[in-house]
Amino acid sequence: MEATEAQAELRRRALEYHSRPPAGKLAVIPSKSCKSQDDLSLAYTPGVAAPVREIAANPEKAYDYTGKGNLVAVVSNGTAVLGLGNVGPLAGKPVMEGKALLFKHFADIDAFDIEVQTRNAEHLIDVVAAIAPGFGGINLEDIAAPLCFQVEEALQKMLDIPVFHDDQHGTAVIVAAALQNALELQNKTFNTIKVAIVGAGAAGLAIARMLRALGVTAVYLSDVHGVLHEGRNDLTHWHHAFATAPAHWTLDDMLEGADVLIGVSVRGAIPESALPGLAPRPVIFALANPDPEIDPAVVKHLRPDAIMATGRSDMPNQVNNVLGFPFLFRGALDCRARQINQAMLLAAVDALARLAREPVPDEVQQAYGFSEPAILQFGPEYFIPKPLDPRLRQWVAGAVTAAARKSGVARI
Amino acid sequence: MEATEAQAELRRRALEYHSRPPAGKLAVIPSKSCKSQDDLSLAYTPGVAAPVREIAANPEKAYDYTGKGNLVAVVSNGTAVLGLGNVGPLAGKPVMEGKALLFKHFADIDAFDIEVQTRNAEHLIDVVAAIAPGFGGINLEDIAAPLCFQVEEALQKMLDIPVFHDDQHGTAVIVAAALQNALELQNKTFNTIKVAIVGAGAAGLAIARMLRALGVTAVYLSDVHGVLHEGRNDLTHWHHAFATAPAHWTLDDMLEGADVLIGVSVRGAIPESALPGLAPRPVIFALANPDPEIDPAVVKHLRPDAIMATGRSDMPNQVNNVLGFPFLFRGALDCRARQINQAMLLAAVDALARLAREPVPDEVQQAYGFSEPAILQFGPEYFIPKPLDPRLRQWVAGAVTAAARKSGVARI
Repeated sequence: MEATEAQAELRRRALEYHSRPPAGKLAVIPSKSCKSQDDLSLAYTPGVAAPVREIAANPEKAYDYTGKGNLVAVVSNGTAVLGLGNVGPLAGKPVMEGKALLFKHFADIDAFDIEVQTRNAEHLIDVVAAIAPGFGGINLEDIAAPLCFQVEEALQKMLDIPVFHDDQHGTAVIVAAALQNALELQNKTFNTIKVAIVGAGAAGLAIARMLRALGVTAVYLSDVHGVLHEGRNDLTHWHHAFATAPAHWTLDDMLEGADVLIGVSVRGAIPESALPGLAPRPVIFALANPDPEIDPAVVKHLRPDAIMATGRSDMPNQVNNVLGFPFLFRGALDCRARQINQAMLLAAVDALARLAREPVPDEVQQAYGFSEPAILQFGPEYFIPKPLDPRLRQWVAGAVTAAARKSGVARI
Repeated sequence: MEATEAQAELRRRALEYHSRPPAGKLAVIPSKSCKSQDDLSLAYTPGVAAPVREIAANPEKAYDYTGKGNLVAVVSNGTAVLGLGNVGPLAGKPVMEGKALLFKHFADIDAFDIEVQTRNAEHLIDVVAAIAPGFGGINLEDIAAPLCFQVEEALQKMLDIPVFHDDQHGTAVIVAAALQNALELQNKTFNTIKVAIVGAGAAGLAIARMLRALGVTAVYLSDVHGVLHEGRNDLTHWHHAFATAPAHWTLDDMLEGADVLIGVSVRGAIPESALPGLAPRPVIFALANPDPEIDPAVVKHLRPDAIMATGRSDMPNQVNNVLGFPFLFRGALDCRARQINQAMLLAAVDALARLAREPVPDEVQQAYGFSEPAILQFGPEYFIPKPLDPRLRQWVAGAVTAAARKSGVARI
């Protein structure tokens, strides 16, 4: 099929999938027996008065007697949905339902989508804080920068449950894990590299912050208006923290000599002309979906010494957030964590990086259609775990729980 | 077992039921296949972009491509939970989860509980309006009067989906249906009776309003401070609409000669001394749970000409809201109604009253442990349908949908 035909076919099948009865992708069902009159008398009146009284006396008992401890709200105001932009809360609902479905599928977490009708940060903060009591965690999703920074910071301070903006921290965790392995393969280390990030939205800034935490000192970002530097007057204070480039730098200057080039932007945002100027043995992550910032075939041709990751499932080394958020929340919920802190994020980075260096079981090889075992093995074509790897939950969630306990944010 | 032993046993079993893993009573699961990589590519990126685009272009398509059309938010701020009062939002969660479970069990509606941390009407209105886009209906629950009146009225005006306060209208529908049949049995009619309502909270006022709509002209209410009359300066404008009693009336005056006595208060609120003064062939609904306002055994002894209903499942004629809200919402959702209006409520009253006068199928007799068929038949011991009657959905939801279409609030 031609590309346009394939796209039309995907569209047709996706609409059919979503509209097939029951419409949508989620169902809310009883998790307990409720067949008999006796069951109902325990689940509702008069029996339900007992857990109500227990929780009224001690709010922590909500973890014992309600679904709170395994429940995540997927919250969006629909201002930055996929690559489609500000489609509004209702049009974002299929994505949020999908995210909830992934929570369940990968980590057995009950997740429910909440679309909030507002584009105002204070309002969004107020609404989410008001509905937070019943949830064990908040996953912010597809909220435009810089509003997303303000909302996440405020809610983290106000609430005693994890508040996590996946587009920032989820992405940063996967990128950092992949980069750690890629650098090992290229024989480089975090503290000596120059990193250029094309795209300074939620993902770009969070990646920059994560890389700094990992020891990278030379990290530069650009957006559609050029390289971030102190002299620009169109930057938020979140951007200013990474506006470290000299004022005269062009995009070419930023890319010149870069060891690591990360695109979190759109197709075409990385010019082919920059390839020759990169450092020897470069690492290039071109993460725009569905079309990477630069064509991997071109990279392979012009820079055979580069190793690459993309956002695509049909290419090696897919940077896919599903490697992170289900297990970060699983680990946090398992110990009733009060937050997902930096220590927990770094533990996830480390676990993902280590897992990719382990031998890959036959079942995972087969899940990806490799008939010959051991085709997936640590190297330039495989340095990030695959989403269907069943070891992810234990490795990542376990590491996150341990880090939560060690850093004092776990309740149990 | 003694009463206190039985209560302790119920408490123990209810806590065990709620805490048995997984804690709580609800699970959120995929309603569509999501086993293969192909499924996930339809449910999430890249396929999910198709329904997002469709809904962005036409918001009504959310009914086709998301769960909105079968989804109800069970919203509470926990200020009037069961008979336990203001326990707060989190302690109310077991009740709200239970309500969601009943929605699923009785009417196959996906319902999700939202506990809102606020005791301010404007704030509650704002929060619910902000999160409403993703839902097909809002069920307000256990919100104290008079805040509940203000919240419901405002949200009904703001939103284009049904907003329904079950403690008001659900109760009023069942009471009205039961009363219609009870009056027929006592050979009385709505427009000639004197009705006394003990309790002037959400339920009492909604019942009064419903009875007026059914033609009752003489309806009086009392609260803990006495009979409602124009001269009282402690009443809201919702109460004033029913403050029609003479200023000198005592509770005894209100009850004297009453054809219908409805208790929506607490145990003991109806004095035994009032029984002799009631009109001949009275109807007494003593709906407080778990203990009625007056002991049914005493009523039977002092007024053998009375017929009774209570809120208890172990007595005849249980006024149970589960007869109403699942089917009112089922009927509303089936036609994508913009509201649940008076015509729909009256249609539900009529359907419930008619159903109780039909012969009861053997399966329903058996469900309630009647080994001999036809024990449940229309009369003083059976004038309200039983909750497990499988005909309820078709009868009530069907009537509600028809009324919605006729009154112009249905989308389809």
